[in-house]
Amino acid sequence: MGQQRPASAAAVAPPVPVTDRARTIDAVDPFIGTGGEGHTFPGAVAPFGMVQLSPDTDTSCVIRECYAHAAGYRHDDPTIEGFSHTHFSGAGHSDLGDVLVMPVSGDAVAMDPGTPAAPGYRSRFDHASEVARPGYYAVTLDASQVRAELTAGTRVGVHRYTFPSGTAAHLVLDLRRSLYNYPGKVLWSGLHLRSDGTLTGFRETRGWAPGRKLFFAMRFSAPLTGHALVDRDTDITYKGFQAPGRGSDALAEKLGKQLEARLDFGALDRPLEVRVALSGVDEAGAVANLDAEPGAFDAVQARTRAAWDAALGAVELEAPAPTRTIVATALYHSLIAPSVWSDADGRYRGPDDQVHQAEGYTFRSTFSLWDTFRAEHPLLTLVQPAQTTNDVVRSLVDSQRYSPHGILPVWQFAGRETWTMIGYHAVPVIADAYLKGFRGFDANAALDAMVTSADYAPYGGLGDYLKLGYVPIDREPEAASKTVEYAYDDWTIARMARALGRADVAQRFERRATNWRNSFDIRTGWLRARKSDGSYRTPFDPTAINYGSDYTEGNAWQYSWFMPQDQAGLFRLLGGDRKAIAKLDAMFDYDNSKLDYSHAEDIAGLIGQYIHGNEPSHHVAYLYNYAGAPWRTQERLKQIVDTQYHASPEGLSGNDDLGQMSAWLVFTALGFYPVAPGSNQYVIGRPFVSRATLRLPDGKSFTVVADGLSDANRYVGAVALNGKPLTRSWIEDGELRAGGELRFTMTARPNKAWGAARAARPFSTTR
Amino acid sequence: MGQQRPASAAAVAPPVPVTDRARTIDAVDPFIGTGGEGHTFPGAVAPFGMVQLSPDTDTSCVIRECYAHAAGYRHDDPTIEGFSHTHFSGAGHSDLGDVLVMPVSGDAVAMDPGTPAAPGYRSRFDHASEVARPGYYAVTLDASQVRAELTAGTRVGVHRYTFPSGTAAHLVLDLRRSLYNYPGKVLWSGLHLRSDGTLTGFRETRGWAPGRKLFFAMRFSAPLTGHALVDRDTDITYKGFQAPGRGSDALAEKLGKQLEARLDFGALDRPLEVRVALSGVDEAGAVANLDAEPGAFDAVQARTRAAWDAALGAVELEAPAPTRTIVATALYHSLIAPSVWSDADGRYRGPDDQVHQAEGYTFRSTFSLWDTFRAEHPLLTLVQPAQTTNDVVRSLVDSQRYSPHGILPVWQFAGRETWTMIGYHAVPVIADAYLKGFRGFDANAALDAMVTSADYAPYGGLGDYLKLGYVPIDREPEAASKTVEYAYDDWTIARMARALGRADVAQRFERRATNWRNSFDIRTGWLRARKSDGSYRTPFDPTAINYGSDYTEGNAWQYSWFMPQDQAGLFRLLGGDRKAIAKLDAMFDYDNSKLDYSHAEDIAGLIGQYIHGNEPSHHVAYLYNYAGAPWRTQERLKQIVDTQYHASPEGLSGNDDLGQMSAWLVFTALGFYPVAPGSNQYVIGRPFVSRATLRLPDGKSFTVVADGLSDANRYVGAVALNGKPLTRSWIEDGELRAGGELRFTMTARPNKAWGAARAARPFSTTR
Repeated sequence: MGQQRPASAAAVAPPVPVTDRARTIDAVDPFIGTGGEGHTFPGAVAPFGMVQLSPDTDTSCVIRECYAHAAGYRHDDPTIEGFSHTHFSGAGHSDLGDVLVMPVSGDAVAMDPGTPAAPGYRSRFDHASEVARPGYYAVTLDASQVRAELTAGTRVGVHRYTFPSGTAAHLVLDLRRSLYNYPGKVLWSGLHLRSDGTLTGFRETRGWAPGRKLFFAMRFSAPLTGHALVDRDTDITYKGFQAPGRGSDALAEKLGKQLEARLDFGALDRPLEVRVALSGVDEAGAVANLDAEPGAFDAVQARTRAAWDAALGAVELEAPAPTRTIVATALYHSLIAPSVWSDADGRYRGPDDQVHQAEGYTFRSTFSLWDTFRAEHPLLTLVQPAQTTNDVVRSLVDSQRYSPHGILPVWQFAGRETWTMIGYHAVPVIADAYLKGFRGFDANAALDAMVTSADYAPYGGLGDYLKLGYVPIDREPEAASKTVEYAYDDWTIARMARALGRADVAQRFERRATNWRNSFDIRTGWLRARKSDGSYRTPFDPTAINYGSDYTEGNAWQYSWFMPQDQAGLFRLLGGDRKAIAKLDAMFDYDNSKLDYSHAEDIAGLIGQYIHGNEPSHHVAYLYNYAGAPWRTQERLKQIVDTQYHASPEGLSGNDDLGQMSAWLVFTALGFYPVAPGSNQYVIGRPFVSRATLRLPDGKSFTVVADGLSDANRYVGAVALNGKPLTRSWIEDGELRAGGELRFTMTARPNKAWGAARAARPFSTTR
Repeated sequence: MGQQRPASAAAVAPPVPVTDRARTIDAVDPFIGTGGEGHTFPGAVAPFGMVQLSPDTDTSCVIRECYAHAAGYRHDDPTIEGFSHTHFSGAGHSDLGDVLVMPVSGDAVAMDPGTPAAPGYRSRFDHASEVARPGYYAVTLDASQVRAELTAGTRVGVHRYTFPSGTAAHLVLDLRRSLYNYPGKVLWSGLHLRSDGTLTGFRETRGWAPGRKLFFAMRFSAPLTGHALVDRDTDITYKGFQAPGRGSDALAEKLGKQLEARLDFGALDRPLEVRVALSGVDEAGAVANLDAEPGAFDAVQARTRAAWDAALGAVELEAPAPTRTIVATALYHSLIAPSVWSDADGRYRGPDDQVHQAEGYTFRSTFSLWDTFRAEHPLLTLVQPAQTTNDVVRSLVDSQRYSPHGILPVWQFAGRETWTMIGYHAVPVIADAYLKGFRGFDANAALDAMVTSADYAPYGGLGDYLKLGYVPIDREPEAASKTVEYAYDDWTIARMARALGRADVAQRFERRATNWRNSFDIRTGWLRARKSDGSYRTPFDPTAINYGSDYTEGNAWQYSWFMPQDQAGLFRLLGGDRKAIAKLDAMFDYDNSKLDYSHAEDIAGLIGQYIHGNEPSHHVAYLYNYAGAPWRTQERLKQIVDTQYHASPEGLSGNDDLGQMSAWLVFTALGFYPVAPGSNQYVIGRPFVSRATLRLPDGKSFTVVADGLSDANRYVGAVALNGKPLTRSWIEDGELRAGGELRFTMTARPNKAWGAARAARPFSTTR
């Protein structure tokens, strides 16, 4: 029996001894999001690890379309094709699935995966045999009866395969496979079996990241009794020079586009362990990364479990079981990207495809910035050591330095720019960090990089935006979305420039921050795409979702709310609080029965025209606060959490988007959300956990308590900060970082007076 | 009028003041070998330069087969396609032709080369407008009326294009082109136009060197007025992600497989200069290499001319004009490879495709070792600073260190192994250097690398060779050639091991050095391919040349002489001097009229069954000395030089093979030849120059004088070393390096007594 806490605690509750609390790590369920639209993976990864070692149920897009297998694994697939070392957590587009390994037992070794109906090295499996925990995954493969276990360190993945006794053990390494596969994707690859038994190799691929290079090094716990390095290319138009007597099978190097290795170990009397390190630099880097994280499976697993325990322990949670599971898992999913990309010695391959040295920091990549500037990066500023945020900023700024275009990352992974989505949202990430007091980077150099990016005329209609004050739809697609997102990014530049005392930059970008108005049609009350002659494009339908059209993955319903820096200004244009609330309600309550969005990617999680499965909507439920009606935000949040998050594989209503969907839930569960990163404010919603303690980067703690939390008590009756009533509907970042307690009193009836006053409303440039 | 030398000089002639002598550089004609079978290039290169900037008359193999265009340029082609930066000097197989640039004038810029009949950017040219000197090439392009001049430093090429006044100047950069081109050869390539105006890029190609990577950086003397980076790929099965609004033309990066750039400069009032640097490491390395060799065209040209003047000045020549030209040009061609491959900062891409650091030396590649171990490398030990030979050895040993197979290079370029030809002939190169006293490397580590290579069972039948004492033809093609070449290489290992006091290694390899006997059929008197059951393969025809057959690019006539370590042993097997001489004569005098070798590559320069155009024959004319008949060698040498070398584009009877054909001539012209590198002996033939002075690496001089040299005086009547009669038919390397004079008295009648005694004959293991 645990020690019972008093029902009415002192204003600031004394810390509960750690030993008495359930640990957050134990509530994580990595299967959440592996079905439905979540696109998460169940395999092993360390916090922000370069290696994501996870089962792929299909890489050939034969079972279902590629999109469904963006993370390699789908919970409802019947077979596992193999275990590969890189995966995105919740991406919409995809790639990766590098260095696929599959154990095979017995004498016949299939060298092709086959199909579920006619399997080659592919195997059926049963979910009953699966185990997934942070840093650990296990499954039994029906075909070979191999027990497969996976763990991962930062740059290392370790496989442990227990073969049936007395049967010959083999591994198939298939360098042909990748996620979002297609003929010609592998540009070149190589395998080198070195005299010390280390197998190294590399792969260069086309795809989402053009010309991506990845290197690996692999060592085995048992000696090879045989091997074959084979080129399966059947379409070699020119074989190159073949020296007589080359004896290609005997030589320990193979280069080509369609390489595989068969590795033989004979009958083993103990499990086979395979240690694999990755590098973006070179094979020597992969070998050094392998040496930098020594130890066998159990040692690596123990280190990674300790790392996850520490990282997840930054948020201690008390909540009913399903809520605790979805919030703990959300925190887990928010601590996977941006991934470490530099080698143990600091070298990394940058956006110019060249190798650079990260001096005094760890270079990170996998920046899904259009998604993650919203809540994912702000969350990391609270739950991670300061070094993480400083690493992020330095990685972004050095990426700009080495970008062939001289601009900050847009959507970067493996150090390479993919030009996915819109905006220059590295800008709010950097500004948010600086304004919150992070100083582990050269702030003036960072601001210069931000300004350079925001002034880069060839990018996404920016030239016209600079001239006209908006992006014209007759010259650039998705012009309406670009205009408002640029204007928000510009506002964060202005904020940071003011803080740095650079008034000239601040003035220029404060003016640009109002550009959202230039694409807002006051007459109709919608954000609309405007042509270069000044007219709004017709025909106009606020429910239409057409890619390459006026908006980015959305329509006027979602995008007309995107001016986080000036929601009050928007509400004035809409005709005041009442009309703004009515329009918000009209969005949530819209009857979609006559609409068909089956053609549109990433449109999932619809509540009327509110689309929780995609990011443009993520701040919108909090906007009632800006109209003085926080109780309406509280209602909408319950509606969203109840319908959009579940403790099941299908528990995410949209792509997790490298942690953004999850970070939304972590914040929302705590009772507040960063509607406008750069404002240093968190808008208060309502908590979904009865108690949570944030272990802040500097060692202080901030506790959220929800007195009376229940399904019926869905409203916030009162809020107290450190024992004093809080009448405004936001808290400041500094208040959080100072440590203390935010105590909600939950009630069944709304407190419509709380937060209604103008002064009680969150920040807007228009007051 | 020059100062006249006295007709009968003192025993050792006083050095002639430099100002009074014609300089060797002025006798070089880079066009020699650019027609016929020579496969040399006429363009600009510095001694051992990484950059070989030269015109390509055809890269598409449309005019003639690829083989004819191994060096890009053929003297009898009517058009020039462009100027590219890498070329082999005299290779049989080919590749390279990287970063092709072509100037175009006027408003219409063709982006394809077209054909000679329907030219695109290709242009006709007239040989009358051509100039070629060491480090300089110029031509006028008929189509554009551009005067094109090329020069090159070690890692830099500089173009100077003078456009007709008032016409718009453009450059086309075609990354699609290469030598030995075919669809799919370019794996990936990139172009980055940087904000400082530097154009950098890279290319990864399949081909002779699999997965070869080359990087470049390019700067222009005039600002760009416009540009287009274009992808001409018409076979893109998957376009990858295309972000909306990416504005691909406006952005200054392009990645793809079929890239071109159009660079516009407007009308220029002065010549356009283009400075280009290469790197095997990365684009930053190319930029640093560009900065490491500063200066405009004239400055780079002047530096390179000075470097050539110094390098060619190592052999001062006096001879009739055509002989002086062919020998000076031969020396020039022997100083092009092995090329510098490491960057200015010492980084290089090694055989494992990884970047390494050359510590305290310059890494070199382009090792055509099957050819060059014979005379090219021995020549470099005499005419180049010691650093060159030490660099060669360190590059070979470090290549072994970083080889995925752990063996020394076979045929390496751009740091990559191509597995071309046979043997482990890095071994005699290293042994020759060590035995001659070169010490700029770790000799014991080098010996270990040699032994490892010689024991590497998977390579070329070595496993069977170790077991059986010969390579069996039923298990490995070209077995007869491999057996004798391995045995010679083994002998050089033994020699070096003895010198290092490593008796165990020496004993083992002394035994292996006799293995040539195991494939020599005493009954028939031929080297023959033997099966694993011990029998000789039948049917047997000593004139048959079939690739993949018993011999390598040859037949029993040529290969039955390859036991340089034991020619006396061979002659005993043949039945003594008389029978050996008769067989040599039978070879030279063979009537080929009934044979057809049109199917066989690199079989050119036939004198009976002696084939001067290919290497297995190169030492054979000197073998009469081993039978006590140097006067017969003297006759054969005149026969060979008169028929196989000419001062014309068709002046080389076979591929120059990275200097081996040329090094043969340089040695032969001086009057001696290294029949058995590793023996420290040079076998005396007869001189073809009236006087030559070698400027040796340590500053000493060695002068050869041919008194009475004339067409009629084709025999050596007497030889004196430093004024004393020399009765043996060889000189020691130490005698050469001590400095002094070797004086020949040429006569019309042979001196059959000279060199006839057994003690007067060159080294053989059997005495």
